[in-house]
Amino acid sequence: MKVALFGAGRIGKVHAASIRMDPRSELVAVTDVMTDAAEALAKEYNIAARSAEAILADDSIDAILIASSTNTHADLIDAGVKADKAIFCEKPIDLSLDRALGVRKIAADHDKPMMMGFNRRFDPNFAALKAALDAGDVGKGELLSVTSYDPAPPPVSYIKVSGGLYRDMMIHDFDMCAFLFGMPRTVMAHGSCLVDPEIGEAGDVDTAVVVLTYDDGRIATIRNSRRAPYGYDQRVEVLGAKGTIEAQNEIENTVIATTEAGRISAKPVYFFLERYMRAYAVEWSAFVDACVDGKAVPATIQDGVNALALAEAANRSLAEGRPVTVTPEMTGA
Amino acid sequence: MKVALFGAGRIGKVHAASIRMDPRSELVAVTDVMTDAAEALAKEYNIAARSAEAILADDSIDAILIASSTNTHADLIDAGVKADKAIFCEKPIDLSLDRALGVRKIAADHDKPMMMGFNRRFDPNFAALKAALDAGDVGKGELLSVTSYDPAPPPVSYIKVSGGLYRDMMIHDFDMCAFLFGMPRTVMAHGSCLVDPEIGEAGDVDTAVVVLTYDDGRIATIRNSRRAPYGYDQRVEVLGAKGTIEAQNEIENTVIATTEAGRISAKPVYFFLERYMRAYAVEWSAFVDACVDGKAVPATIQDGVNALALAEAANRSLAEGRPVTVTPEMTGA
Amino acid sequence: MKVALFGAGRIGKVHAASIRMDPRSELVAVTDVMTDAAEALAKEYNIAARSAEAILADDSIDAILIASSTNTHADLIDAGVKADKAIFCEKPIDLSLDRALGVRKIAADHDKPMMMGFNRRFDPNFAALKAALDAGDVGKGELLSVTSYDPAPPPVSYIKVSGGLYRDMMIHDFDMCAFLFGMPRTVMAHGSCLVDPEIGEAGDVDTAVVVLTYDDGRIATIRNSRRAPYGYDQRVEVLGAKGTIEAQNEIENTVIATTEAGRISAKPVYFFLERYMRAYAVEWSAFVDACVDGKAVPATIQDGVNALALAEAANRSLAEGRPVTVTPEMTGA
Amino acid sequence: MKVALFGAGRIGKVHAASIRMDPRSELVAVTDVMTDAAEALAKEYNIAARSAEAILADDSIDAILIASSTNTHADLIDAGVKADKAIFCEKPIDLSLDRALGVRKIAADHDKPMMMGFNRRFDPNFAALKAALDAGDVGKGELLSVTSYDPAPPPVSYIKVSGGLYRDMMIHDFDMCAFLFGMPRTVMAHGSCLVDPEIGEAGDVDTAVVVLTYDDGRIATIRNSRRAPYGYDQRVEVLGAKGTIEAQNEIENTVIATTEAGRISAKPVYFFLERYMRAYAVEWSAFVDACVDGKAVPATIQDGVNALALAEAANRSLAEGRPVTVTPEMTGA
Repeated sequence: MKVALFGAGRIGKVHAASIRMDPRSELVAVTDVMTDAAEALAKEYNIAARSAEAILADDSIDAILIASSTNTHADLIDAGVKADKAIFCEKPIDLSLDRALGVRKIAADHDKPMMMGFNRRFDPNFAALKAALDAGDVGKGELLSVTSYDPAPPPVSYIKVSGGLYRDMMIHDFDMCAFLFGMPRTVMAHGSCLVDPEIGEAGDVDTAVVVLTYDDGRIATIRNSRRAPYGYDQRVEVLGAKGTIEAQNEIENTVIATTEAGRISAKPVYFFLERYMRAYAVEWSAFVDACVDGKAVPATIQDGVNALALAEAANRSLAEGRPVTVTPEMTGA
Repeated sequence: MKVALFGAGRIGKVHAASIRMDPRSELVAVTDVMTDAAEALAKEYNIAARSAEAILADDSIDAILIASSTNTHADLIDAGVKADKAIFCEKPIDLSLDRALGVRKIAADHDKPMMMGFNRRFDPNFAALKAALDAGDVGKGELLSVTSYDPAPPPVSYIKVSGGLYRDMMIHDFDMCAFLFGMPRTVMAHGSCLVDPEIGEAGDVDTAVVVLTYDDGRIATIRNSRRAPYGYDQRVEVLGAKGTIEAQNEIENTVIATTEAGRISAKPVYFFLERYMRAYAVEWSAFVDACVDGKAVPATIQDGVNALALAEAANRSLAEGRPVTVTPEMTGA
Repeated sequence: MKVALFGAGRIGKVHAASIRMDPRSELVAVTDVMTDAAEALAKEYNIAARSAEAILADDSIDAILIASSTNTHADLIDAGVKADKAIFCEKPIDLSLDRALGVRKIAADHDKPMMMGFNRRFDPNFAALKAALDAGDVGKGELLSVTSYDPAPPPVSYIKVSGGLYRDMMIHDFDMCAFLFGMPRTVMAHGSCLVDPEIGEAGDVDTAVVVLTYDDGRIATIRNSRRAPYGYDQRVEVLGAKGTIEAQNEIENTVIATTEAGRISAKPVYFFLERYMRAYAVEWSAFVDACVDGKAVPATIQDGVNALALAEAANRSLAEGRPVTVTPEMTGA
Repeated sequence: MKVALFGAGRIGKVHAASIRMDPRSELVAVTDVMTDAAEALAKEYNIAARSAEAILADDSIDAILIASSTNTHADLIDAGVKADKAIFCEKPIDLSLDRALGVRKIAADHDKPMMMGFNRRFDPNFAALKAALDAGDVGKGELLSVTSYDPAPPPVSYIKVSGGLYRDMMIHDFDMCAFLFGMPRTVMAHGSCLVDPEIGEAGDVDTAVVVLTYDDGRIATIRNSRRAPYGYDQRVEVLGAKGTIEAQNEIENTVIATTEAGRISAKPVYFFLERYMRAYAVEWSAFVDACVDGKAVPATIQDGVNALALAEAANRSLAEGRPVTVTPEMTGA
């Protein structure tokens, strides 16, 4: 299976390595508006840096992997569908829910696999938690809590074009809730600017709590912060009828020193590349499974729309100071 | 310091033991409408079971400890004030916030120590967490999360007279938030009946999430469930500017077996008597400190009013489906 | 059951509190060559400080608890047997194995309960480990490892009269091995002076490893150090045919702070009074069970002889630099 | 840097992947007496399966990686030296200490890097422990404990040619002790057959404890078992003058379920490929560092001789039932 990569930045490089690790897929081309980045990656993989047009027109290429900036995602999905490629796209589909709903319609008729890069679904820890939950190890889920703190905020220049915390950062957590508990009925958002006043001046929050309620009474809570100086804090916990199940952080190493200062063990791994290194490889293999073996895509365009709809509801809830109901119109369902 | 005990039930017995453990206090009398219970406890301690009136009229008695049923608390505080006793009262002051505000006024002029039994403030784990937080170990607090699950729900007959989950169970967690973060500006309550339909039929919830927001942007989240089959789940976690601090559960023992089934360690201790055994002793000594050494009371009548005001706000929030603002009128402040 | 206490020092006070906590036993007298200590303890418990002779002659006293200095133990056991008392004696019986074997003979004909104070057998953690081991949770035991470090060495003046590390400190660990695995066939001792040169000058070691081998091929390892600045390190681990079971340290509290410095949790509790507080109470109740209910004594004079025999074998092994076989003559078996 | 691989079995494949992961090294040839295995690996890497002779004669090949069976190691090192290659060799050098001492002499004059595959030195956990120890985090080391259990014994046919537990399995732990504490003065070995009687009939032990003592009084303890059904148990612990430092097992995932059955977390990863996956990559890069950048080799032929000398001393100690002194003659020092 021949793959072309759109985007040669940090996340593009991660995907390039995953493509190489799966013996069934081969990276054959890369493109990036930053031509230096494209050339460098092309050189490392002994492949060609090409134009987007040339890639889309090349019938020998089976799949495209979209890891370029967010504002190009929807257009590239459209183009990929027209070029009849299998498509793997980093989250989000777009910052606009309307635009995402449009993509969803186009995608509906596409007969090649299309997958959203919700990498956390493939993290061995969260995957094991879901498997145990589905197996009934702790009974039916009742309370879900997702903790997701970044080690440090991105530059304010990025914040300004990010679509805001709920669409940019919490979207992963919305998807985690959908992954584990399905789509909620209401969204209540709280948010503050506690980390960096410039983030607030840019109209965004950096600290947030969102509560999701479900038709059957289940409740999910998401906590986000743009700053946890000790590293990337990524935890999930579910109270079920028979017990609690939690996925804790991965830590840098297993060393513990016990001295008069207490028991000191290692910090969580620093950021998403370290924490989700294995998840990216598993995620890519799942896409190859879909392309090569016809398996179901484990993170669909609809999942991308759903997460975006929850982010939009959160934005509205924060603005209006009240819970917002998630309607079928919001997800195209 | 001579002490009389009102209430010879489960919690009364705990307090009787604490009184004995502090060499500065002596249990001299007990009263209970269940005279058998009073007689049994009196016999064990080699003291007299007396009437409430006799106790209040006895000038040799310095302090009364109110551990009788909730509906008697306010009247006994009134009577204790009139009899010029130092007063230790189990939470809550009353199920009615208005009544509690009345007690608050009467208490304002009383010159003897008055203390509310918010035992969790004295738990060595939560106390150590607060000390570390106050010392700035993790910087200024931003996100507070309180988890509080009972092992099993009480009988529905109790639920019906309990005042509801927010006043009966979450009141401890409201106080924990006040203890660690102070009084919030808004209260948003979510609640469901997932554990026992009869609890829902009685008009109460058994599963609840409440979010508190603060004037300065801090946010607190409380999770409650009436059922955690593995025991009493009592945890607190704070994200601060420099890190996260958490107080985990106490477990039954430190044994870990590692077999093909995984690594199996002990459950949390089963319920509040086991978990807060040490807290009750420390709590009582703090009251004796106030009576004997004139130290400040660490959990005041105002603290009792505050927790009740938050519970009332939560009830209103749940009923109206929107955040409720905590006003000065609600706390008499 | 009326009890008289011999020894009003640190460990005597612990036992006095345990006697009070069990409603079936009553402390009625105390004696100590340090009369001030005896008077102080007597005052606290509202009892009489008496002479040893008077106590032994008092037929109303059912049991004596020997918590005086080691060199008095054997004589007091003799006297207690003659006075027909139930006897609880702190370890060791004596520093001389010959003397202990003599006590063993006298004890053989005594028809009242006699119990050695091997408190660690009653620690809830080690007791739970033994119960799980006996229940076959990890299959038949193969490798046993006992870790036992004191926070700081005692004064060298104490070291000089202590009988040496193996008899004074490791005797508890020898008993733990006997408790869990029974009596071994050989003892191989290693020892060094790494903590304080004065301990070496006094002819003793402060750091030691002993390996015990069993007839059926099982092997036990004991590690001792007189110094672990973080507290009292008391762990046991067993590899069985189906897995590993371990009892970890108890820690001061359950708080964990995660910052750039790592994850910092509390130290082990500092020393034996904190760690074995609960064990002392359970131990005493087991003795009362034997006296009042006729239950079997869970730590016998023979157990005391056995531990001493292993210590003596260790001393010989260290001196001769070779494994020493434990013979029936050494334990009187 | 062009590399040829000797041995296309399980460990050969691991090394092939490590060679590919380091951009500075390139796998160009493979050889194995099992030609099918060589062909399969060659095909996967798009390289040639060649004869040993052809590889050694090919001047374009810079380094050989010896991952063939133990009995070929010494001869291949000799041949590699003659062919002027850099040499990476899996442990052990040979089952015969005399033969290893011979290799050591030949190696002394070789001017290309030669490295022994003591992979555990490169495990991030043990490496972090050593770094902390060297940094003085817990003061000067006093007691070292190495735990090393395999999940299940190898076939008895392998045991028979393995050289016995001390040379085959514990050799890694001897190297760990040398890595952390240096070379000891005495070796005392204990060993039993508890796992499989056929291992005993083959003249070997499957359960073993070895104690090493050092000139300056430090003591190290190694525990080995051929069977820990829960996985690969690999831990190291050091008591220093200021505290204890330990490297715990890596576990399969971070999920913990808490139910009435207790708190259940994941097992240690199953065996050495999973546990030391990262270590193998780091190890290989260290060898490339030595070849390309002239850095010191972190595991030398002398280290290989030293570990073998300790294994031989252990065998003699077990046979003679007494501690064996490690002499300069044994290590060629």
